[in-house]
Amino acid sequence: MKNKKRFAIIGGDLRQVKMANGLAKDGYYVKVFGFKDIEFAPNVIKAHNMQEVVEGTDVIVAPLPCSLDNESVNTPFYDGKIFFNDLFKHISKNQLFVGGKISEKISNLAKVYNIYIVDYFEREELTILNAIPTAEGAIQIAMEELPITLHNSHCLILGFGRIGKILARMLLGIGANVTVEARKYQDLAWIKSYGYNGVHLNQLEKVIGNYDVIFNTIPSVILDTEILSKIKKDCLVIDLASKPGGVDFEMARDMGLKVIWALSLPGKVAPNTAGNIIKDTIFNIIDELGV
Amino acid sequence: MKNKKRFAIIGGDLRQVKMANGLAKDGYYVKVFGFKDIEFAPNVIKAHNMQEVVEGTDVIVAPLPCSLDNESVNTPFYDGKIFFNDLFKHISKNQLFVGGKISEKISNLAKVYNIYIVDYFEREELTILNAIPTAEGAIQIAMEELPITLHNSHCLILGFGRIGKILARMLLGIGANVTVEARKYQDLAWIKSYGYNGVHLNQLEKVIGNYDVIFNTIPSVILDTEILSKIKKDCLVIDLASKPGGVDFEMARDMGLKVIWALSLPGKVAPNTAGNIIKDTIFNIIDELGV
Amino acid sequence: MKNKKRFAIIGGDLRQVKMANGLAKDGYYVKVFGFKDIEFAPNVIKAHNMQEVVEGTDVIVAPLPCSLDNESVNTPFYDGKIFFNDLFKHISKNQLFVGGKISEKISNLAKVYNIYIVDYFEREELTILNAIPTAEGAIQIAMEELPITLHNSHCLILGFGRIGKILARMLLGIGANVTVEARKYQDLAWIKSYGYNGVHLNQLEKVIGNYDVIFNTIPSVILDTEILSKIKKDCLVIDLASKPGGVDFEMARDMGLKVIWALSLPGKVAPNTAGNIIKDTIFNIIDELGV
Amino acid sequence: MKNKKRFAIIGGDLRQVKMANGLAKDGYYVKVFGFKDIEFAPNVIKAHNMQEVVEGTDVIVAPLPCSLDNESVNTPFYDGKIFFNDLFKHISKNQLFVGGKISEKISNLAKVYNIYIVDYFEREELTILNAIPTAEGAIQIAMEELPITLHNSHCLILGFGRIGKILARMLLGIGANVTVEARKYQDLAWIKSYGYNGVHLNQLEKVIGNYDVIFNTIPSVILDTEILSKIKKDCLVIDLASKPGGVDFEMARDMGLKVIWALSLPGKVAPNTAGNIIKDTIFNIIDELGV
Repeated sequence: MKNKKRFAIIGGDLRQVKMANGLAKDGYYVKVFGFKDIEFAPNVIKAHNMQEVVEGTDVIVAPLPCSLDNESVNTPFYDGKIFFNDLFKHISKNQLFVGGKISEKISNLAKVYNIYIVDYFEREELTILNAIPTAEGAIQIAMEELPITLHNSHCLILGFGRIGKILARMLLGIGANVTVEARKYQDLAWIKSYGYNGVHLNQLEKVIGNYDVIFNTIPSVILDTEILSKIKKDCLVIDLASKPGGVDFEMARDMGLKVIWALSLPGKVAPNTAGNIIKDTIFNIIDELGV
Repeated sequence: MKNKKRFAIIGGDLRQVKMANGLAKDGYYVKVFGFKDIEFAPNVIKAHNMQEVVEGTDVIVAPLPCSLDNESVNTPFYDGKIFFNDLFKHISKNQLFVGGKISEKISNLAKVYNIYIVDYFEREELTILNAIPTAEGAIQIAMEELPITLHNSHCLILGFGRIGKILARMLLGIGANVTVEARKYQDLAWIKSYGYNGVHLNQLEKVIGNYDVIFNTIPSVILDTEILSKIKKDCLVIDLASKPGGVDFEMARDMGLKVIWALSLPGKVAPNTAGNIIKDTIFNIIDELGV
Repeated sequence: MKNKKRFAIIGGDLRQVKMANGLAKDGYYVKVFGFKDIEFAPNVIKAHNMQEVVEGTDVIVAPLPCSLDNESVNTPFYDGKIFFNDLFKHISKNQLFVGGKISEKISNLAKVYNIYIVDYFEREELTILNAIPTAEGAIQIAMEELPITLHNSHCLILGFGRIGKILARMLLGIGANVTVEARKYQDLAWIKSYGYNGVHLNQLEKVIGNYDVIFNTIPSVILDTEILSKIKKDCLVIDLASKPGGVDFEMARDMGLKVIWALSLPGKVAPNTAGNIIKDTIFNIIDELGV
Repeated sequence: MKNKKRFAIIGGDLRQVKMANGLAKDGYYVKVFGFKDIEFAPNVIKAHNMQEVVEGTDVIVAPLPCSLDNESVNTPFYDGKIFFNDLFKHISKNQLFVGGKISEKISNLAKVYNIYIVDYFEREELTILNAIPTAEGAIQIAMEELPITLHNSHCLILGFGRIGKILARMLLGIGANVTVEARKYQDLAWIKSYGYNGVHLNQLEKVIGNYDVIFNTIPSVILDTEILSKIKKDCLVIDLASKPGGVDFEMARDMGLKVIWALSLPGKVAPNTAGNIIKDTIFNIIDELGV
């Protein structure tokens, strides 16, 4: 069944393009709509309108994020508008609609139209796998900005969630001295077992002056004025946490610290990988639904 | 406060001996009871009876497991009996009693005597850190039993919990080809992100014939007759899961497979490390209690 | 003795600036000349002319490369000219002159003036340590150029010399699938023992189509027309070999392949690290001379 | 041609048995002689005498070491004697004779009989690959003997040759703190680049008291009385160097240190791997000879 699924890819950026080409390459039937001047693989079918793209498919794929205005599909490569209001009219209850970061409004709209939707951004495996391009993007930024090699440098990671775990491993793999901050004893046990130095949040102040680069992954302000004042002047701070982020940016700027707020890295630094991650996640959804 | 804590170590094996010596070396006041013919560090005080060992201490430490008969302390190095019934009479409510795998019966007895007890074996960080000597012990067994090097061998780990995670990392570090079986997509995402091969439980049958050594960490019978029949004849199976274990042992024996059931490895292969883990965990308990 | 050495740093780029500051920070007496508008650490002494910078020092340090025109010191941060002809007049035979890539002409000139010179670029440890920033620079370029993550990508390294060895290790550490090409069986044995895939030069043609990125480290044209024609169209080729390089560039361009020739990476991507490497090497020279 | 080679395996231990079975499994014609009560794979032909085993084969394989008495083949699994004197009579100049550690006497005898011989033990790739089981064997011994885990332990490796390089990598992979002693600055540069701590021989005395286990790989006595006296009392010393070894054993024993002299590990701890290494090396020899 899975092998016979037919896909409609509607809107999105390079990740969606990659996904369409990838599906086509694997022998799936793929139609696309919402892309202008983009060259797809030969066997990807370019639909001319909403009805055409949806017709005869099993899975309709919206981008990540699904929408920027809560009304139309997010279509950076298209100058028209694809309103969910219209789109949903063409989708039947036997089709599966998947998208990323689907808002409550759009979700409710789908209910009205009796459409079965799944938000792939809420899948744990996608979040884990996205941590890989995020960590690589962070490493790329550090390499670009620092006048030293990461090898043999002293790196501090704030937080030991998904990004922290993968970043720590990669940095160690490059040859950095890696310290990870955490709050829970069990996280500190993991940190030790993986061969990193661990530091408890309440000891952070004492050691924060030792690092060449600090990666924050915690979405709450850890690096406040007091702690910022103890960081080395030439230390680079890369904030990977979504708003509000973990750094008091204004204060950091006033202190002359270099802080980079790096968000949404997967789509930027590795769109093909990010597209594949979405694709694989959609297949997991299909598998679990058993449709 | 923590620096001034006084400890009573009652019964146990080499781990407790190591802990007593380690505490004494770090400058703590330590009394011991329940050890015969064991040489301790010079500044460890050997008490002559229950009353003496408990008196004037802040923390009373029982071994892991606390008891084998639900009545007396587990004292492999002592020929007498230390009954909890008696022991608890000497402990006041201002003292902290810690032990490992404290049974409900002993726990209830402590309540009767109004004693504050904590089971350090239930601490997540101890379980995580214990996975390190467990993984090393498993590797040691594999090295001893296999006529090939682990380097370049094909290893399969069943389960990606604490032991699975640490074992996978060490095996990769030695140069093995590491495959990990898991059931959840999110675990498979982690497995991929860490650079191991992942295999879903429902694909296990297809690949199980490829491995030189299989480490089971799942406490339910995964390796049943059907799957066992597909394992290579010279494959080594090491079962690290507590009862019932993950292998149908009788069936495996009948098939001529070499299966080793390896339990309680930390105290066996690395008593000093295991003793330190218990010690560190006890300090975490003290820290959190803020006593 | 070593602790009392006095240094003159003449000309150079950020690496020399870093070295001067590093020496001063470690408590050495340091004079500099040949830098305009560069801020040094407070205890670095800015000399006003050749005589002044050389006077009273033990070790005179020229940059890497020492000279671009074979007549004057390489001074990218200075608009005047410092001719070796003049400079050498101020140096006595009790002083040590060190520089990088010292040409035969300058070397001969030193003989005329009876000056003891050592070329630190010919030191094996400098070449090895320089491979670290070179490998990191190559990884940075790959991350910037590729639409996929290095994690899980298929990387091929041509050659298993200094750069090949360190690059392979870092790529594996990031989570890439690493294949290394070599010609000698003993190199292939090392490649296997380190956990990479090995491919013999004479098998290269068969596998070269499998890679997402190819790093060349061999200074002779391995990637000729025939082999180039088998590379994937979206494969990135990074050539790290000094002239003539290992890629037929014109042919590659005609084929639409993306080839980047990346030379002299250490000074570009990590000047501080590169400066420290030169500094450490100079101390090794001093140690061995026993002066 | 290589695919059609016919092999005669004469004498040896489990490595030779493994090699015979491996060759047969790969479809080669294999005859064996000099093994009693050993079960081979079904398609291995058991010859009844010297003439029969040699007849019709292309490559005659003697064990490692080739001989223990300089007169007869080393046949631990056979109670008769196979004298080279006799054996060589049956070998023609069109056949290739390979063995390990061929003495000058046997080599000269081969010349008399006009037989082309190659000593596979002199091949660099075999020595490199043998360092893998040697390193694993050393790790196994350390795991068996130490009451602590290697993870987080402090390990010192004396020497950064083949065994030192592979052992360092594996120990780091398990999670140990790894320090390597070397004498040459270029080795120290490699040690640093690979992420180990480096210590120069002339600083050894100052740090040797910090280690839990010391692996010696240098075949000359580094650990003399003076240095031995500074080692921790509970430190384990594993000597992997061939005679005279790197440890003053008598002195070490008098001091109460635990020293293990571990020689010829590949054949002991991983005979199958060791057999495969010999097999692969023989194929390399055949390849290079182009026969």
